[in-house]
Amino acid sequence: MLAFQVEKGKLRLREKPVPKLRPGWALVRVRLAGICNTDIEILRGYHNFRGTPGHEFVGEVAEVAGVSAGERKKWIGGRVCGEINVTCSAYGFKPECAFCQKRLKTHCARRTILGIVAHDGAFAEYLTLPLENLHVVPESVSDEQAVFVEPLAAACEILEQVDAKKFREAAVLGDGKLTQLIGRVLRTKIPRVVMYGKHEKKMVLARRTGIETKKVRGNVSDLSRVEESYALLVEATGSPSGLALAEQMTEPRGTLVLKSTFHGTAPVETWPIVVKEINVVGSRCGPFEKAIALLRSCKVDPRPLITRAFPLMEAQKAIAFAQQEGVMKVLLKA
Amino acid sequence: MLAFQVEKGKLRLREKPVPKLRPGWALVRVRLAGICNTDIEILRGYHNFRGTPGHEFVGEVAEVAGVSAGERKKWIGGRVCGEINVTCSAYGFKPECAFCQKRLKTHCARRTILGIVAHDGAFAEYLTLPLENLHVVPESVSDEQAVFVEPLAAACEILEQVDAKKFREAAVLGDGKLTQLIGRVLRTKIPRVVMYGKHEKKMVLARRTGIETKKVRGNVSDLSRVEESYALLVEATGSPSGLALAEQMTEPRGTLVLKSTFHGTAPVETWPIVVKEINVVGSRCGPFEKAIALLRSCKVDPRPLITRAFPLMEAQKAIAFAQQEGVMKVLLKA
Repeated sequence: MLAFQVEKGKLRLREKPVPKLRPGWALVRVRLAGICNTDIEILRGYHNFRGTPGHEFVGEVAEVAGVSAGERKKWIGGRVCGEINVTCSAYGFKPECAFCQKRLKTHCARRTILGIVAHDGAFAEYLTLPLENLHVVPESVSDEQAVFVEPLAAACEILEQVDAKKFREAAVLGDGKLTQLIGRVLRTKIPRVVMYGKHEKKMVLARRTGIETKKVRGNVSDLSRVEESYALLVEATGSPSGLALAEQMTEPRGTLVLKSTFHGTAPVETWPIVVKEINVVGSRCGPFEKAIALLRSCKVDPRPLITRAFPLMEAQKAIAFAQQEGVMKVLLKA
Repeated sequence: MLAFQVEKGKLRLREKPVPKLRPGWALVRVRLAGICNTDIEILRGYHNFRGTPGHEFVGEVAEVAGVSAGERKKWIGGRVCGEINVTCSAYGFKPECAFCQKRLKTHCARRTILGIVAHDGAFAEYLTLPLENLHVVPESVSDEQAVFVEPLAAACEILEQVDAKKFREAAVLGDGKLTQLIGRVLRTKIPRVVMYGKHEKKMVLARRTGIETKKVRGNVSDLSRVEESYALLVEATGSPSGLALAEQMTEPRGTLVLKSTFHGTAPVETWPIVVKEINVVGSRCGPFEKAIALLRSCKVDPRPLITRAFPLMEAQKAIAFAQQEGVMKVLLKA
């Protein structure tokens, strides 16, 4: 099969054998894959990942192993998306780690992560995942919607961690792909959601979904001129200065959700967290079933966030394009 | 009256008029005051405070204003300690700020803070506070215990924010005065509390109260050699590198309580908070009544933490002494 691979900071096309399946695993033919900022970070050396990147996808089950004929029939040909953390149970580890035992599978101590840590991802003709990670995509949800399930689930994670009913308004810092999804997800529960961003072209997409937008001029540090504060604020700028600004805009006893996995250190003052008794909530992967339900009900439609789709074979070009100013979601089509 | 005042980074003794009382306020003759690290930071310029520092005290009500004869009789001569945040109601602001309206008095938007922000403190013969801030000290609680009510209440705040019942063990980073109180408070609810500190002389005090201790050799950055992790961790080192270390020692989905009000920026990586979905809880002032109850029941006895008491007139010398290696609580006795 053809697969792209990270080599010296570049994506290289390679011919590789189709991976063998462990019992309970599936071979998935990738139909559509999304490029995430994490993929760009991986090319810059994040996680020292040397395999095939790509963790946002929708595909078709091509093969399964170690299941009954009935199970097999149920899966083969089915359209699926997949959770990216591969955990103890999938590798047959017994006993399972403390986190798997507590059903905190996304925190499995032994996990590999599709396209990020020690497991090849979706920028290829095929990928493998355990059946327990797969979610069937309902017929009414198109490939272009389904490819957003993974990041949309990450946005939904906030609702698992924070009781949205308690808030009449919330702010999101940033106007990028993930922030856009977060804004839309919050908007399903919270009457007023305000996005603080820098790019008019991106913010107009948010306004069309009922999100209020405020433009921050110039450098992010100019956010220090923002005087508003919020009881619920989500930091997803992906920028090192994001936390400092978010601290400032969070009310005393407020909740500050961190979504940026910016790597590297940033100079941070921690005393505002203490003095304001802020609750800082780190938030990562989320519930796929809730993301699928939002797509199915059309409560969130991510399709306007697609800037362009490239053929899989042009992945190198696509990833360069994805880094251009103003570009939102870029897809790879097999 | 005699009062010390911050002038050019030093404590200067000054003769000042006894302050006039607003209705509902009390004049308190200070019996004993404690020196806190915040007082030392104030001398270094923190908050640009130019008045009389000191916010840990026990005193005697000398005068009250604007209350009935019965109320007056109840208060005069009574031994009291006092909450340090002076809020809307005490200054007669109407309407009260949003936080006072929500009974989050310690976050009052207009607050002054005894000995820290715009209100003279306890390194003096007298101080003033609103009656609503005062708590009567039970007879069975000595002055030497009562002077710890303010920092002990700050330690108790953690139990207001975190459900201690959920934890079988917890760690505290640091071995200083506040950390010692935090360890003792946690120990009243959590079977195993481990203190990570650097000073054997300080840690022995903790061990006598049933706290386990682990010595960290050399520089705090050596904490990176600590491999243990905890579902509940309290960072109270007062050091800029504290947060980074605490992040590392907090389990996925764990709770990290921040107590250090270290001023200045520290280089911090925020991605571990996101990836591990850590809940970071900023924690400041706490419930006086709970601290008094702990002293009364002798569940926490802070007296072994007293290194030395100085006469009030030697405050300058006392504050220099308080900054010496290995010194714990230093008191000023009027």
